[in-house]
Amino acid sequence: MIVSEKICVEGFEGTISRDTSLTGPRPGVLVAHAFGGQGAFDTGKAEDLARLGYVAIAIDLYGQGRRASSPDEAVALMQELTDNRPVVAARMQMWLGVLADLPDVDAARMGAIGFCFGGKCVLDLARSGADLRGVVGFHAVLDAPEVASGAPMLASVLVLHGWDDPLATPAQFCALGAELTGRGADWQMLAYGDTGHAFTNPAAQAPGEGMMFNPRTNARAWAAMATFLAERLEGEL
Amino acid sequence: MIVSEKICVEGFEGTISRDTSLTGPRPGVLVAHAFGGQGAFDTGKAEDLARLGYVAIAIDLYGQGRRASSPDEAVALMQELTDNRPVVAARMQMWLGVLADLPDVDAARMGAIGFCFGGKCVLDLARSGADLRGVVGFHAVLDAPEVASGAPMLASVLVLHGWDDPLATPAQFCALGAELTGRGADWQMLAYGDTGHAFTNPAAQAPGEGMMFNPRTNARAWAAMATFLAERLEGEL
Repeated sequence: MIVSEKICVEGFEGTISRDTSLTGPRPGVLVAHAFGGQGAFDTGKAEDLARLGYVAIAIDLYGQGRRASSPDEAVALMQELTDNRPVVAARMQMWLGVLADLPDVDAARMGAIGFCFGGKCVLDLARSGADLRGVVGFHAVLDAPEVASGAPMLASVLVLHGWDDPLATPAQFCALGAELTGRGADWQMLAYGDTGHAFTNPAAQAPGEGMMFNPRTNARAWAAMATFLAERLEGEL
Repeated sequence: MIVSEKICVEGFEGTISRDTSLTGPRPGVLVAHAFGGQGAFDTGKAEDLARLGYVAIAIDLYGQGRRASSPDEAVALMQELTDNRPVVAARMQMWLGVLADLPDVDAARMGAIGFCFGGKCVLDLARSGADLRGVVGFHAVLDAPEVASGAPMLASVLVLHGWDDPLATPAQFCALGAELTGRGADWQMLAYGDTGHAFTNPAAQAPGEGMMFNPRTNARAWAAMATFLAERLEGEL
């Protein structure tokens, strides 16, 4: 049975999901929210990860009670962190520590996935040199922090990208390829045609703004993530 | 048991591989060779596809007995066809007809995979509007033909690409994305970091020229192909 439990750590909220029929340490995965803040979408993804056998935490990067009720509010909340990338990395590392300390998580087998702004957050976690096995960005914002960490990038990277995403252009796709290559990272980027931003979100219905749910790409991307996580979290260390 | 059988059609050689324990029509897949011409590498891939339950033909695009015994000869053989893209499409379509006519092939469920130059050939088959369900290019040469077909692109496309491939630059990767988007194709392109040209071929050992076997990318790319072929050839029509 999948059971979800709310927690609050250092003023940030999270929801832990796990399959209670499993016993013993297993891989753990963080789920980083899109620009609106943590909510039902992310909690649902954490439950989906629990169904794959992982312990998952849908995390909050904005702080308790800070959620957007409009796109303008979402942009404002995101901008606070976009302007302060070291804080993004620090909050992600805080959550990684929470995940590692859970009694049923194997701290040697941790990953993180994120959506839109959350995709940038998991990339920043990897960029910071954090000790986890892999990160997956769905329609992630791709721009590098102004100041690059000098730490080796330990996490493998998978980016699942809509080619028509107005928030992440082909030029930015190429720039990320160059950046990750320069860092010596193990990386993969999967570009999908006929796909814009927010392709995982059934609520995204703004094709004129390049933001549109795409059920085919959504299914393909989730399957690609599952394959990647199986390799990184369940394979040999 | 996997059984391979040589055939010759209109002066071109092929090797058909199938699992003889299976009965009834099943999906069929063409395997297009790299610049040296059809040989043991492609026949091995056809056998691997037969192990996945498909009927596969390792095809020949140069003509009976025309195989390269040196890189210079390979470039010369390839150049004949690179200079004559309609001939590439015609030869690929001829082989697709051979595949469709096999009694144990379901002609509604056909695909094609290719390596290097063969990747260009399967892309050209898709570009020609041929009636097949999907094509997969491994470290494919990506440049479009000078004259584009006006036919709808029926085949879904998967490109498995080494980001450091000197024969297919990031700019050409982006150009293919734009081309396939313009054609209204269903496409995916998967870029792999730390990966050059010929990453599937254990004989490729020229890192200075950007051509190098990469066992990790090879395994990931084959798995991505298998997922793609399962969706396109075994799913709903």
